[in-house]
Amino acid sequence: MTQIIKGHIIYTESPESLTIVENGYLIFEKDQIVGVTDQLPEIYQSLDVEDLGDVLIVPGFYDLHTHGGQYPQCGIGMSHHLLDWLKDYTYELERKFEEPAFAKRVYAFFAEALISYGTLGAAVFGTSSFMGTQILFDTFIDKGLRGYIGKVCMTRNAPDFIIKDMATNIEDMHRLVERYKDQERVKLIVTPRFAPTSTHESLEALGQLSKEHDLPVQSHLDETVDEIKWVHSLYGSESYASLYDQHGLYGQRPTLMAHGIYLDEEEMTLTQKRGVMLVHCPDSNLNIASGIMPVRKYMNQGILVGLGTDIAGGHRISMAEATVRCVQLSKQLSVEKPEYQPLLFSEAYHMATAVGGSFFGRVGKLKAGFKMDCLVIDDLPLYKELYSVADRLEKFVYTGDDRWIIRRYIDGQRL
Amino acid sequence: MTQIIKGHIIYTESPESLTIVENGYLIFEKDQIVGVTDQLPEIYQSLDVEDLGDVLIVPGFYDLHTHGGQYPQCGIGMSHHLLDWLKDYTYELERKFEEPAFAKRVYAFFAEALISYGTLGAAVFGTSSFMGTQILFDTFIDKGLRGYIGKVCMTRNAPDFIIKDMATNIEDMHRLVERYKDQERVKLIVTPRFAPTSTHESLEALGQLSKEHDLPVQSHLDETVDEIKWVHSLYGSESYASLYDQHGLYGQRPTLMAHGIYLDEEEMTLTQKRGVMLVHCPDSNLNIASGIMPVRKYMNQGILVGLGTDIAGGHRISMAEATVRCVQLSKQLSVEKPEYQPLLFSEAYHMATAVGGSFFGRVGKLKAGFKMDCLVIDDLPLYKELYSVADRLEKFVYTGDDRWIIRRYIDGQRL
Repeated sequence: MTQIIKGHIIYTESPESLTIVENGYLIFEKDQIVGVTDQLPEIYQSLDVEDLGDVLIVPGFYDLHTHGGQYPQCGIGMSHHLLDWLKDYTYELERKFEEPAFAKRVYAFFAEALISYGTLGAAVFGTSSFMGTQILFDTFIDKGLRGYIGKVCMTRNAPDFIIKDMATNIEDMHRLVERYKDQERVKLIVTPRFAPTSTHESLEALGQLSKEHDLPVQSHLDETVDEIKWVHSLYGSESYASLYDQHGLYGQRPTLMAHGIYLDEEEMTLTQKRGVMLVHCPDSNLNIASGIMPVRKYMNQGILVGLGTDIAGGHRISMAEATVRCVQLSKQLSVEKPEYQPLLFSEAYHMATAVGGSFFGRVGKLKAGFKMDCLVIDDLPLYKELYSVADRLEKFVYTGDDRWIIRRYIDGQRL
Repeated sequence: MTQIIKGHIIYTESPESLTIVENGYLIFEKDQIVGVTDQLPEIYQSLDVEDLGDVLIVPGFYDLHTHGGQYPQCGIGMSHHLLDWLKDYTYELERKFEEPAFAKRVYAFFAEALISYGTLGAAVFGTSSFMGTQILFDTFIDKGLRGYIGKVCMTRNAPDFIIKDMATNIEDMHRLVERYKDQERVKLIVTPRFAPTSTHESLEALGQLSKEHDLPVQSHLDETVDEIKWVHSLYGSESYASLYDQHGLYGQRPTLMAHGIYLDEEEMTLTQKRGVMLVHCPDSNLNIASGIMPVRKYMNQGILVGLGTDIAGGHRISMAEATVRCVQLSKQLSVEKPEYQPLLFSEAYHMATAVGGSFFGRVGKLKAGFKMDCLVIDDLPLYKELYSVADRLEKFVYTGDDRWIIRRYIDGQRL
């Protein structure tokens, strides 16, 4: 069945500007967009058009790095040092996800928050718990979200109560593969927490698992200077990226690497060559005092860069906030280095929608051949009177919240 | 009549920590707090206690720098260069405030937004319009807010349609003095936009006016490197702060100076000596790529520093957001300069409540002798179960919004 909705359609075909069809028709069949146009083609003229009025129809947001198991902790202990924060809050919270009732309650809350803020897909770190990860999967399936769900694998350098030995981790992963292999929208992703909680053996085993089942990969890379020193002290002098690479965890399958603030020249070359997508998490960069990712520098080298909230290193689940902070931090880099060109709003928005969406397939643009994922945004009469459609989108991203989003579609179905 | 409400009472007696009375009694008579205690004194035991349950009772926020006449523009044109942004958006918008219907509509919207996000007092730049400024005054009075209201005085370097000659500016100010001199909660503040839109003559006239009517002062200072160069090119080589000072506009009466990012040693000494309060506007610093105010450095010199949103240089009207960004940017400074000590959450919260409140009198702390201004915050059962009262306050500031604020009191009256 063909359906048509009408409104101001906006997305980014490419980063440098917004593509806008004012008073446009978004035509879709089942889960697919079949046309976006300002003139309804004759073959569709007999169909009902649902005119949504003076609203914005825009892509969903796609969060490429978030820790579902840390969601309750957002905005807490933000003046602690990182290691104290992990010890006093994070690990104790992650431990609770062995309790099914707690995991169900928190993951439902997390998934509902994603949806309410317009995040239609997310690459998620769960916890090390098999049961908890299974509940996270089931929650995403139940809510209809797109997701890459990771069971966090750690074999050292974390409290005993959340470490699993490698055999258990691999067995858990095989069970998850088996259980969810037929899911279309929610998929398993191989998730070593990061190099310091791994060993050569555990990374090798996860690389093999990724190869065996053709699974994507996510982890952390080059987030802080101290972490990089730690990696060198644990593994010797090879680069952090090449460590993942030598175990088949760096772009051999689709790969997300969160943060990536301090890539050296060799790592940049490898990252570009392997098509690894870096995930910029600007609020987390600020909260953890990690430094700021030089997004423009990486883009200029042909490296793919998406956006993430990094809940709970980042404190806001809204990808709109991540988009704003991405622009803001690029401006701060331009203050520090006058030759640095700040990101345009359209570039950051492109990262949050089209680039993020691309990790999920043909997702994140409102054009024929893409999945019918979108948000409908309604703003105030005052803004409709004063500002252009492009300005109104920017205002939604900068100042709006979940109340501005009046509809959410995934695969052509309203959530 | 004595009234008592019960809940977890939190404020900052001093910046370095939160003062917390769990399950405390806040006792007030008319507009004054008369006691805060965890044991109800015998003389009050016959009175009704309104037990609000497991909620947080906290001070209001006080925004020391905001442009009411720019509120519709928040989050729009954020990729424009500053001068284009002013030309294409700001000045055209400010011009509209000559229309009373527009001014009434927008200022009501602005005041309601302040209240909804828990800002109980604000130092506001209106526009250059007499009529518009009068409407801003009347709106604050009508809504019951605390305010310092400024008619923006400009005599050059802005479009003709918003410039007034000095005689008109002074006459307008005299009319505003006369009209509002008996107001307790909403007061006039002398408001040269900034040095570049002034002359020695206009600054002198405003200094005289401040002296004659004992009026406080607000303006902008040392916001960007280019602006400072401009001031030097217009006025010669004296320091920006001393220019205001020589005309009686720098601490001779209570004075707010927004931004103050680049004070030199002489300016720091003068600022501390005169008791001028600098207003840090972190989101604006990022959005305009101004640089980051070194708050800790100023505090260490005994300079008073409050917080502002700087609507619409800042895009969020919420002072909670300003508080978060203040902590975040201090962390970023600590990345750039490892000897820089980032601000604690309690320090930024103190700026947003106790320091800001102090500009309005005995306001901003929940203790006997202070005005009964407060907010009541209710959060989710999950957070009540998992976290301490202090953590829950931090979570509200980092992740909450207007929906978390269930009551607002000013001078003992619920808004």
